[in-house]
Amino acid sequence: MAVRGPLLKDELDIVIPTIRDLAFLEQWRPYLSPYHLIIVQDGDPTKKIHVPEGYDYELYNRNDINRILGPKASCISFKDSACRCFGFMMSKKKYIFTIDDDCWVAKDPSGHEINALEQHITNLLSPSTPFFFNTLYDPYRAGADFVRGYPFSMREGVATAISHGLWLNVPDYDAPTQLVKPSEKNTRFVDAVMTIPKGTLFPMCGMNLAFDREMIGAAMYFGLMGDGQPIGRYDDMWAGWCCKVICDHLGFGVKTGLPYIHHSKASNPFVNLKKEYKGIFWQEEIIPFFQQVVLPKEAVTVEQCYIELAKQVGEKLNGLDPYFTKLSEAMVTWIEAWTELSGTAKKSDATSNGSVN
Amino acid sequence: MAVRGPLLKDELDIVIPTIRDLAFLEQWRPYLSPYHLIIVQDGDPTKKIHVPEGYDYELYNRNDINRILGPKASCISFKDSACRCFGFMMSKKKYIFTIDDDCWVAKDPSGHEINALEQHITNLLSPSTPFFFNTLYDPYRAGADFVRGYPFSMREGVATAISHGLWLNVPDYDAPTQLVKPSEKNTRFVDAVMTIPKGTLFPMCGMNLAFDREMIGAAMYFGLMGDGQPIGRYDDMWAGWCCKVICDHLGFGVKTGLPYIHHSKASNPFVNLKKEYKGIFWQEEIIPFFQQVVLPKEAVTVEQCYIELAKQVGEKLNGLDPYFTKLSEAMVTWIEAWTELSGTAKKSDATSNGSVN
Repeated sequence: MAVRGPLLKDELDIVIPTIRDLAFLEQWRPYLSPYHLIIVQDGDPTKKIHVPEGYDYELYNRNDINRILGPKASCISFKDSACRCFGFMMSKKKYIFTIDDDCWVAKDPSGHEINALEQHITNLLSPSTPFFFNTLYDPYRAGADFVRGYPFSMREGVATAISHGLWLNVPDYDAPTQLVKPSEKNTRFVDAVMTIPKGTLFPMCGMNLAFDREMIGAAMYFGLMGDGQPIGRYDDMWAGWCCKVICDHLGFGVKTGLPYIHHSKASNPFVNLKKEYKGIFWQEEIIPFFQQVVLPKEAVTVEQCYIELAKQVGEKLNGLDPYFTKLSEAMVTWIEAWTELSGTAKKSDATSNGSVN
Repeated sequence: MAVRGPLLKDELDIVIPTIRDLAFLEQWRPYLSPYHLIIVQDGDPTKKIHVPEGYDYELYNRNDINRILGPKASCISFKDSACRCFGFMMSKKKYIFTIDDDCWVAKDPSGHEINALEQHITNLLSPSTPFFFNTLYDPYRAGADFVRGYPFSMREGVATAISHGLWLNVPDYDAPTQLVKPSEKNTRFVDAVMTIPKGTLFPMCGMNLAFDREMIGAAMYFGLMGDGQPIGRYDDMWAGWCCKVICDHLGFGVKTGLPYIHHSKASNPFVNLKKEYKGIFWQEEIIPFFQQVVLPKEAVTVEQCYIELAKQVGEKLNGLDPYFTKLSEAMVTWIEAWTELSGTAKKSDATSNGSVN
């Protein structure tokens, strides 16, 4: 339980989307209680969410989102954990750690609790190596380095924008795989952090994720999911595809691997199938689209890249479903709202430490 | 010490380049003795190499190489472990495992000996996934699968051509890193096998390497190194760069990670620096060359790809040093010899089981 830190205490917010009491934070207390929380309450706004004592937080429900964003609130999903990106927008900090409320503290093979946030911070503060693969994984970890044959000019690496953590116990499977392997557990602790190479897409899971909000936050939009939308459970995937092509374009790094959290409960595969099924065939065209996307040289900020991406989504994916025209527009709305609000949001807009507005 | 198998006993040769007695094979006996060895004796051909009793082997020294290849023997390096590729050429089997004589049986974190060859075979017989990253690493391992968001159309994977194993204890560092960190040991057991994504180059080490000779053997040429050449210790790197761009072009997979071997002894960093120093600055231009290589659609066999690559090496790297013109020619000679000999070599050409010709 020994905690080093708290590292970046005043530069990092923890964003949690939830529909229930946050009892899981009791277990995380030694690691997360020094940090400020931004809670995005999904579903019924009249429901009171209980946050364990001693946590400093602000809480936004749907009424808050509607009031703050006005007509632009249409870009924030409802009844889907995609609503978490509203929290990214309200933060004024450089870094974000977002975690789901069914994620618990994992243990490493020697039985020690894993301080997930500390590992994410380590990942974000050390460079990434997207241009050439290092066979001993992250060369910046203690006891590791660049191997023979690694070009010296690439050993400075690039700044890391995203740290993607993994899950022990219940793995992040889609509904068909859940149905086929209802009781498979992930018990393999892989002691590695690695950079996802430039040009390679990956399935980014939002369960246990940290990023540099100033570097990539504007692209960390979780799309239109859930209530009133034809799709769910692709929010983090969408954000991951968009972020990865933009990181590749701007020369930012994306890491995956450690830290693990303990994911407690598989969601219902039948419900998931209903949410996912369009995504399951749409992704067969969406992924080739993202693999081929070229962003113009003139796009030098994340916002410019994202607007360009929105345009290409509208032009090239609209044949798949009218949904993508709507999504393309929502991406633009998101950037408008981000530009307006990010870094300027006032704390008084939110419910703070339990006193519901 | 329990051994499953021996898997692929009649379809796999073990190639060992050496200048000394092969006492290390005693420790490997439970795992390697069922397989046929091809020993490539480097250095003084009059020296008698002792092979432990009970191993079935053929042995080639420099005189054998000269006799068998005639003028084409010029493409096989002398006084450098690059000579191992002669063994790949003489094999008539589908698979090759090559290992250095300072590599010992490693133990996993629970203290069990690792059957490296068995893991390589598992890697080679299961598909690779070069087109999209799976965050839980090799999806074909027991207890793992494709995660949510992985396109279903890509889940069949592609055939695996290369399995690149790693090293505990002495890591595979270049001379400058050896000099800076003379006593660093690799103690981190990373329990993962992964596909190196398409379009990403990696530093392939020849110490603990397996491949499908029929699929990629013709590109597994270790270049001109050692005696009479301006460079050493880049043999496996060269082969790795060539193989990776050809695998990417032909849609073959390359895996790295498990199995580990225990690498016992760091070579002398001062000697290594002398061998490597040209490579250290040459690679700054060689790697961008390989990152940009485009092979023509008409190149549909490894041999055709390799001849094309040889041509481009001659054209585009010759400005770096006249050595690359010579290397380009040697690459062509290698393919001529490969085409002539591969699969047709007669056992009587070699020294078998200790009876020196």
